[in-house]
Amino acid sequence: MSDWAMSDWATSDWPLTYADVLRARQLIRAHMAPTPLRRYAPLDEAVGHDITVWVKHENHCPTNAFKARNGLALLGAMTPQQRARGVVAATRGNHGQGVAWAGAIYGVPVTICVPLGNNPEKNEAMRAYGAELIEDGADYDATLQTALALVQERGLTMAHSTNDPAVIAGAATYSLEILEEQPDIDALVIAVGGGSQAVGALTVARALRPDLPVYAVQAERAAAIHDSWHARQPLTRDSADTFADGLATRSTYALTFPALQQGLRGFVKVSEAAIADALRLMLRTTHNLAEGAGATGLAGLLALREELAGKSVGIVLSGSNIDTPTLQRVLAKAL
Amino acid sequence: MSDWAMSDWATSDWPLTYADVLRARQLIRAHMAPTPLRRYAPLDEAVGHDITVWVKHENHCPTNAFKARNGLALLGAMTPQQRARGVVAATRGNHGQGVAWAGAIYGVPVTICVPLGNNPEKNEAMRAYGAELIEDGADYDATLQTALALVQERGLTMAHSTNDPAVIAGAATYSLEILEEQPDIDALVIAVGGGSQAVGALTVARALRPDLPVYAVQAERAAAIHDSWHARQPLTRDSADTFADGLATRSTYALTFPALQQGLRGFVKVSEAAIADALRLMLRTTHNLAEGAGATGLAGLLALREELAGKSVGIVLSGSNIDTPTLQRVLAKAL
Repeated sequence: MSDWAMSDWATSDWPLTYADVLRARQLIRAHMAPTPLRRYAPLDEAVGHDITVWVKHENHCPTNAFKARNGLALLGAMTPQQRARGVVAATRGNHGQGVAWAGAIYGVPVTICVPLGNNPEKNEAMRAYGAELIEDGADYDATLQTALALVQERGLTMAHSTNDPAVIAGAATYSLEILEEQPDIDALVIAVGGGSQAVGALTVARALRPDLPVYAVQAERAAAIHDSWHARQPLTRDSADTFADGLATRSTYALTFPALQQGLRGFVKVSEAAIADALRLMLRTTHNLAEGAGATGLAGLLALREELAGKSVGIVLSGSNIDTPTLQRVLAKAL
Repeated sequence: MSDWAMSDWATSDWPLTYADVLRARQLIRAHMAPTPLRRYAPLDEAVGHDITVWVKHENHCPTNAFKARNGLALLGAMTPQQRARGVVAATRGNHGQGVAWAGAIYGVPVTICVPLGNNPEKNEAMRAYGAELIEDGADYDATLQTALALVQERGLTMAHSTNDPAVIAGAATYSLEILEEQPDIDALVIAVGGGSQAVGALTVARALRPDLPVYAVQAERAAAIHDSWHARQPLTRDSADTFADGLATRSTYALTFPALQQGLRGFVKVSEAAIADALRLMLRTTHNLAEGAGATGLAGLLALREELAGKSVGIVLSGSNIDTPTLQRVLAKAL
């Protein structure tokens, strides 16, 4: 994508269709209820600027994260042959939990590759759904190589966390629920790791509310896609060292970046301290637990609040899989 | 009830009927979805003794507690005249939030009496639903007198947290959901504040699974009903100083105690440290937030685990409305 430009990428290249989202919803509906979309007056008051905040409670999903949707949609879109041979995923946590959980439901053998030293609570949760866990490699990129080797050696199908239209269609289903419940919402603010949530939201908005502004937010310590978006070309960063580990990516993704470039109204980045502030604010005003990535949408809204003054805005509490030591550090304002 | 005895209290005196529960469910269904009932292999492993633990996620309710059910059922059972004049409740938090939330839905004016110095996060949440908040009295009992005076002065209807069949019918609806989803579950362990949850569970069990053992648990620092149950007579205690403030009661309740006496298989009490342990265990193995009262069912199961070895047991994560300073103390093992 080195010579990528907006002009090369027509609307017809959009990576998935609205029909894909509806198909994903059919798959998902059988195994999980829609999540609540709720308002909290104390949160509205704290955000200020006459903004009405709608919180999409993806922390209520099975596996405590929207990745449950992605897992169901991804494995559900595979052929019976692929499902019988099994899938492999590289992950640090929530994606693996979503794939492992969906694999248990569909009877698909799941192998999960995680880096050495990966969070033990997340490893335990993935094993709990019956996945085979392989701990290998120093970081995510090395782990991905392990997973790719298994595709060759064992004939497994790669369950990619982002670069698959079925994954994006799964993530899109929560945006569909938001717009069905609050069709007149004024804006969405969505955190970006690989971009499946944001491109999912844009896909639904294109079909139902083409005027709906969708904003994206990344952690400034893992801002490759943010920086690329503003530079209008794919850039890579050397590190992705954020406590919002669900967003810890270092590069753009082929399937999502052009769509983000074309569709987003704006893209902001937020500090570790701002994410931690948002996590504490979510806890105090909604009494719901968020992991770092789950609080980043709120942090983005806070960064955008002057621009969004007077609006009704949807944010996503995308997951609650935070480990206790990290939660303690956040509460102690040590982050 | 000083000369109360089991023999005085026939089955026909049961405080509500199964039909009351079904009516409550009709009222509730329009305003909230059934909550999930989930298993977590890491939790099963931690509990041990070959016990399968089913967690009923009442933390997913609106207001983050099962009291939302009670509020809908209670206000829904009132006459149009009562609803027009308004209701008053004495509370320290979750009951008031449930009533205030239901009042906002039904258009019923709600006045909430809380003790001076009540938790500001809970006060803010109640005001947020549009309730008039009156801070008066040194403790819950004094607050109750304030509320009773308003019944006289303003013609309001008392919304009691326990002594109303409609409240118990509301709480019973989650037990109905549990038994519909897992009809072969072996036992339930339910925390007791006033007893609406436990009598609700017993009411559903009598109709659907008369053989189902229901166990109760209280905090040992607020053990009036536990002690009364074992003494087979109503006793009062001087204090109810537990961080599980949803369970902080000092006496039995006329409508629930005889039913608890008749129906429960057993009744245990647990220390503050055991409740805090259970809260941390819930967080680590399920990544769901529990307030003290919300973790007490798990603490009770841990106390009963030898008796319940090999069984499939339902517990209730009844609420997540914990304030940040208390959560910090629990995580720091300072409780």
